Amino acid sequence: MKLKLINSISVLLLLTILICCDRDNSQSQKSGSDSSKDAIFPKGELGPATNFTGNAYNFGLVADDSIYNTLVGNVYFEINARSNWHLHPSGQILIVLDGEGYHQLEGQPRHTMKKGEVIKVPANTRHWHGATEYNSLTQMYILPKTENGFVTWMEPVTDEQYNPTTKTNGNY
Amino acid sequence: MKLKLINSISVLLLLTILICCDRDNSQSQKSGSDSSKDAIFPKGELGPATNFTGNAYNFGLVADDSIYNTLVGNVYFEINARSNWHLHPSGQILIVLDGEGYHQLEGQPRHTMKKGEVIKVPANTRHWHGATEYNSLTQMYILPKTENGFVTWMEPVTDEQYNPTTKTNGNY
Repeated sequence: MKLKLINSISVLLLLTILICCDRDNSQSQKSGSDSSKDAIFPKGELGPATNFTGNAYNFGLVADDSIYNTLVGNVYFEINARSNWHLHPSGQILIVLDGEGYHQLEGQPRHTMKKGEVIKVPANTRHWHGATEYNSLTQMYILPKTENGFVTWMEPVTDEQYNPTTKTNGNY
Repeated sequence: MKLKLINSISVLLLLTILICCDRDNSQSQKSGSDSSKDAIFPKGELGPATNFTGNAYNFGLVADDSIYNTLVGNVYFEINARSNWHLHPSGQILIVLDGEGYHQLEGQPRHTMKKGEVIKVPANTRHWHGATEYNSLTQMYILPKTENGFVTWMEPVTDEQYNPTTKTNGNY
């Protein structure tokens, strides 16, 4: 009888702990995955496959006009998504609002960008940017002096260019 | 003996529940109050009392140069803090990254700004911006065409201008 009682209470204890742990986990998962609730801007429109590898969404913030001559917007890159190679006639300012990304100026090493980082892209310089293979990227862009034009799109960034540390091992 | 055993186990159960509940609470408090952990940019430097009422902190993101002719930064306004009246020779783009604020162009009603909102301030137009009396404001600014200058600072925004709905009732 005494043994039965101890067994019942042990099961009860175990259940209580399990329920508590489950509550903790579901809370952590919520705060970790539901990032859209905290997003500053709407996701925007899917960028065309001719200019992006993977899914990148553009949300326009300031349309070009002859008063500011400045174009501003936000791009949300899903994990592994990146732009093609491209250039801007007056350069570009990139500001990382969330997540983590890569940026590369042609001829220089790939640079990993963190939340809060600002990148000044020189005029007429081939470059690409995108999310990492581990994290999405939310990135604001500013195009100054738009009287000179916006962007010239070029060829896609290959897997080897995107992730030069990944070695392919042939058939084995 | 049986009663003693039940008592001990009851105390153990109660303790387990209390510890679990406490973990839950401390987690909620963390995610609710520690907003500086989620801030995109550092708080920056306190703006001078000659240009601001209350505490407003500026963090420069892009310094002016002759390549972009664009100045970019972030201001964190504490609750009730606001700029003086001022104007920009080429206008200003304001982008609300967090919290809630007020913006007013002279001669127009005060406008309440929400997270994600973009405000285009015309050139040479007297205006002010700041947090509300309930919420702080994190606000990015872009000054285009800086070859024309940055800002002309003017007189403080009075309490009546800041909050025209607050009525003073004299002595009673």
